[in-house]
Amino acid sequence: MAALTLVLDAMGGDNGPSVVIDALVDALSAFPNYHFIVVGDEAELEPLLAANKLADHPRVILKHASQTVAMTDKPGYSLRAKPDSSMRIALDLVANGEAAACVSSGNTGALMTKAYFALKTLPGVLRPALMSAIPQASGGSAFLLDLGANPVCDSDTLFQFGVMGSVAAREVLNIDKPRVALLNMGAEDIKGNDVVKATAQLLQQSKSLNYIGFIEGDDLFADKADVIVCDGFVGNIALKSCEGLAELLLTNIRANIHAHWLTRWFVKLFYSRLQRSWDWLKPDHYNGASLIGLRGVVIKSHGDANAKAFYSAIEQAVSETQHDLPTRIRDQVENVLLEQE
Amino acid sequence: MAALTLVLDAMGGDNGPSVVIDALVDALSAFPNYHFIVVGDEAELEPLLAANKLADHPRVILKHASQTVAMTDKPGYSLRAKPDSSMRIALDLVANGEAAACVSSGNTGALMTKAYFALKTLPGVLRPALMSAIPQASGGSAFLLDLGANPVCDSDTLFQFGVMGSVAAREVLNIDKPRVALLNMGAEDIKGNDVVKATAQLLQQSKSLNYIGFIEGDDLFADKADVIVCDGFVGNIALKSCEGLAELLLTNIRANIHAHWLTRWFVKLFYSRLQRSWDWLKPDHYNGASLIGLRGVVIKSHGDANAKAFYSAIEQAVSETQHDLPTRIRDQVENVLLEQE
Repeated sequence: MAALTLVLDAMGGDNGPSVVIDALVDALSAFPNYHFIVVGDEAELEPLLAANKLADHPRVILKHASQTVAMTDKPGYSLRAKPDSSMRIALDLVANGEAAACVSSGNTGALMTKAYFALKTLPGVLRPALMSAIPQASGGSAFLLDLGANPVCDSDTLFQFGVMGSVAAREVLNIDKPRVALLNMGAEDIKGNDVVKATAQLLQQSKSLNYIGFIEGDDLFADKADVIVCDGFVGNIALKSCEGLAELLLTNIRANIHAHWLTRWFVKLFYSRLQRSWDWLKPDHYNGASLIGLRGVVIKSHGDANAKAFYSAIEQAVSETQHDLPTRIRDQVENVLLEQE
Repeated sequence: MAALTLVLDAMGGDNGPSVVIDALVDALSAFPNYHFIVVGDEAELEPLLAANKLADHPRVILKHASQTVAMTDKPGYSLRAKPDSSMRIALDLVANGEAAACVSSGNTGALMTKAYFALKTLPGVLRPALMSAIPQASGGSAFLLDLGANPVCDSDTLFQFGVMGSVAAREVLNIDKPRVALLNMGAEDIKGNDVVKATAQLLQQSKSLNYIGFIEGDDLFADKADVIVCDGFVGNIALKSCEGLAELLLTNIRANIHAHWLTRWFVKLFYSRLQRSWDWLKPDHYNGASLIGLRGVVIKSHGDANAKAFYSAIEQAVSETQHDLPTRIRDQVENVLLEQE
């Protein structure tokens, strides 16, 4: 039963709980074996559920939460001062086994702190990591981690990110022997800092990983690797820089198009195609990021997720629970620890 | 006299010395007060100069170099094994005062190592930094540093990058009180690693800097700051990730355009506009990166620079020598050191 229940934190996103309820409508028909617990302010949620004819739905449970974590709340503050927040209640439901996964589009820092506090890491796992799929030139995806859960990492932690990412790529992306790479400032062995070099040695020595070496930033999207490992400081800045550039590039292209009457006339046709490229290139907006290494599935949807994006995060939670990703990660980490003994 | 002589390393770029000679032709007419020393293989360069009627040009000197640093040479190796390389000779000409600046599109690692070895840092400067202008949404530029000269930095070094970048933005970009920001994984004070937090304190305390705080990756191009400081590991990966994404995005847009006969028919008109956005967004291809903090001006042009791009790097060298950037940096670093005492 537990494996078929997902809990949705309906509060805390930029676009309000209606986005979550709209995504729930689609999820109920897409995943007929799944039950959903919706957590949040009853006064807001009851009318939304009723409007969508979900008030008495046999697979929907509403659970009241009197508090909401704000986007501006500091993680420590929200942990102490908001014990009855929708986010905390949602995570506790996963921790006590009532649900297999939690999806939230609330404050990332608070979610990471609360999830770590409520769920704890899997046996042998040093730190949880925030991981996202990023698009590849071929049209496929690769996993990039960590994206900000760990600003500073030692080599053992980065090595484990390689192990966990590899399991996720095998289970979720269906890649037989995922190519694991380390993000570095050069492809040669002498490049980088001591932590990256020490991690490379650990990855090279591991028999169970398909480690392919260093890759540089310009290869992030070039189909070179299936799992790309870095610390949270670097991963966060790399991904957000790309977001910033994509925004700038598209603004600039639009301006250049608008500068000519002929292209302007054409923009309507072109726009949908442009938008398609754009959507595809904002993976964190259109897929969730997974917080992996914990005793349960936690998916972080983007703060400004619309219903489609939140649905996509639910899909990801379904996929990770179907593959029982936490158990697969626990087993592989155990294997690797035995291998290292 | 020395201030009006630039030395061009004609070898080591991906596109051969003809690119450098073509750029020289434009530079001679654009900068009538400047003399140029071209360093490289005589056998290759003499015919190229002759073909461009520069064999006896009063403002052009050809200086033979029997060796060339290859793109694949490790910095240490090229320093030891190639004492007569064009790059080394070019840098020595700056070191001994025969030229004010060196422009090279050769191996970045070798250029940084040789430049540091030949020119040394300015008094009080801890480390040189590789700095590039990056485009801003407004159409202007900001300086990002370090881009890879220093994979690991302490807070004193990062603080100095703020000081040096601020001088460069004032002198070269003509910005009165440049806004200095630290690149971090969050805008809140508690975010980031210890080095970034300690650097923030140093920058805050400095009276001569206009420090504005942390910015995140997605604000790199958003007109938030004029000088953006990070260590070389982060800067290199941020900039290269953006390059990778821009490549992917444009490939994807082209594919979407080509998928429809109507847009395909239109692509010719559109392409030049697309290309304009593209060029603008590859700043390292169309401008040089400056290695600042040294006793002389060193500009690194992109390895695959064409004549236009190499000319742009020469322009940058002219600008930095006209403003005597090394002296301005030395003075400011001295001021700041006195302020800290």
